[in-house]
Amino acid sequence: MLLLRSHRFLLPRCLAYSAFVSSYKSALGSPLPSLPRPRSMAKYSTSASPSPSRFLLRQLFEKESSTYTYLLADLAHPDKPAVLVDPVDRTVDRDISLVKELGLKLIYAMNTHVHADHVTGTGLIKKKMPEVKSVISKVSNAKADHVVEHGDKIYFGDLFLEVRATPGHTQGCVTYVMGNGPDQPYPRMAFTGDALLIHGCGRTDFQLKFHDPSYRQEIRDSSTIQFIHRQETNIFTLPKETLIYPAHDYKGFTVSTVGEEMLYNPRLTKDEEAFKSIMENLKLDYPKMMDVAVPANMVCGLQDLPTKA
Amino acid sequence: MLLLRSHRFLLPRCLAYSAFVSSYKSALGSPLPSLPRPRSMAKYSTSASPSPSRFLLRQLFEKESSTYTYLLADLAHPDKPAVLVDPVDRTVDRDISLVKELGLKLIYAMNTHVHADHVTGTGLIKKKMPEVKSVISKVSNAKADHVVEHGDKIYFGDLFLEVRATPGHTQGCVTYVMGNGPDQPYPRMAFTGDALLIHGCGRTDFQLKFHDPSYRQEIRDSSTIQFIHRQETNIFTLPKETLIYPAHDYKGFTVSTVGEEMLYNPRLTKDEEAFKSIMENLKLDYPKMMDVAVPANMVCGLQDLPTKA
Repeated sequence: MLLLRSHRFLLPRCLAYSAFVSSYKSALGSPLPSLPRPRSMAKYSTSASPSPSRFLLRQLFEKESSTYTYLLADLAHPDKPAVLVDPVDRTVDRDISLVKELGLKLIYAMNTHVHADHVTGTGLIKKKMPEVKSVISKVSNAKADHVVEHGDKIYFGDLFLEVRATPGHTQGCVTYVMGNGPDQPYPRMAFTGDALLIHGCGRTDFQLKFHDPSYRQEIRDSSTIQFIHRQETNIFTLPKETLIYPAHDYKGFTVSTVGEEMLYNPRLTKDEEAFKSIMENLKLDYPKMMDVAVPANMVCGLQDLPTKA
Repeated sequence: MLLLRSHRFLLPRCLAYSAFVSSYKSALGSPLPSLPRPRSMAKYSTSASPSPSRFLLRQLFEKESSTYTYLLADLAHPDKPAVLVDPVDRTVDRDISLVKELGLKLIYAMNTHVHADHVTGTGLIKKKMPEVKSVISKVSNAKADHVVEHGDKIYFGDLFLEVRATPGHTQGCVTYVMGNGPDQPYPRMAFTGDALLIHGCGRTDFQLKFHDPSYRQEIRDSSTIQFIHRQETNIFTLPKETLIYPAHDYKGFTVSTVGEEMLYNPRLTKDEEAFKSIMENLKLDYPKMMDVAVPANMVCGLQDLPTKA
């Protein structure tokens, strides 16, 4: 990647960009036919890194479930296309109002996973803005307009998010990672859902039961290994300065970095056996919202639609 | 300023920087003898804008009072000097832990004003880290190691905050604005305390009573005009892309911009009379923490010291 970057400065802009694009495997498989690709080279700034005002990020907090929702947009694109990551039903009006004030065109309402502690705002957003498409991972088995898989890219304007599989909290958990490249924001950002929290991580003991009760014990025993393995593969291999934006924080932190979590995360700095032991002895209560939230979130918050049909 | 910026590229670095410094009035009056100035030109990066990794900003939330605390640091300086703006007593351990993990040297614990809804963390921080100095505005009449006035600059490493008077919520309210210049972060940031909230502003009806009961009526009648005037002078004249970081948010917003508040703040987009009318008809309860928080905060959280002396 370093070679590619230094190459860039010796090549005409369009050639350099082609090289950059071709270094990625072809993305966006058939389940995602409508996610747009970059449109033209002319839209790209000629500076080595994007202008600070090109990329918009807003972190939003829902106090009852301590959930963070993220609004991302490409301000340099004429449409100002935007995505919402992990919206909450209770704060949909706030989020839509902000989208309108900023003059953005919301294209995707995305979830990192099937949440058990709150109902996603995706369904309400789609009712109020039918042009918005819902996105979730294929492995989650949840219904959505688009399902994504590890390695897919999700474009909004000329910026994109990479999908990385980070199972453990749920089998379908993914992390959305801001794209890598001269025209993408630096430092990179990882929207980790519950797979990696600031100095913590999501519990690994319950949601798989919902998906397939008979499968539970096997998953439960292997989930910690799988979890830590996936995190090491898909989050901790990112550059240390990568910003970690989780789906929750209960202590008032808003952001961390890969480097900090590798040094100070009290669970993930342990070896696999110690991690397994921690996770199996958390003795957490059954999630209060589980029986309401999970069925709703399995249809991306569209649980009311059948009764209206 | 634009002229100065384009000049910069034609001049040797040190000359350009001198020109930039001399464009500011001499700052840091006698009450602030120990606040360090920039040390040497050699520390400055040669790029037009600072590296994204030079400036560290962490926004931290205290849920009970919905207070934001900000940790700022100059990572390019060998000491990594840092300041905390509006720390809360209940979250001091969290904040100190973060300072240590990041390898920062906390030099100032600063308040934007004498808060009425929570006890500042400044006193506890000073007990745990006696080398840290407390900072508050002179007009607040509160006790602190350093008192600052409109126009002062507060350096941490080679980065600085400007002090801007923004009275109204309290007579001593100030906004700390990230310095302007080629080596300061862009866009600028304004830590507004309660003077300007996201789509709101702090109440203007109570705290002046504490400072001088006999003065209340006069202040109350004039405070709205003074308030709006000061805001227009000292916040809304900043570039529109300037980020607004308030001391509180009750709806889960974390940041706004000058441009957004000029367009959408439901109070400050009104004229003076309408603004006055809104502020005088809020019918808010007496602040719950007022009788505990204000006396404590008038001594920057050192309310326990006399009993221990």
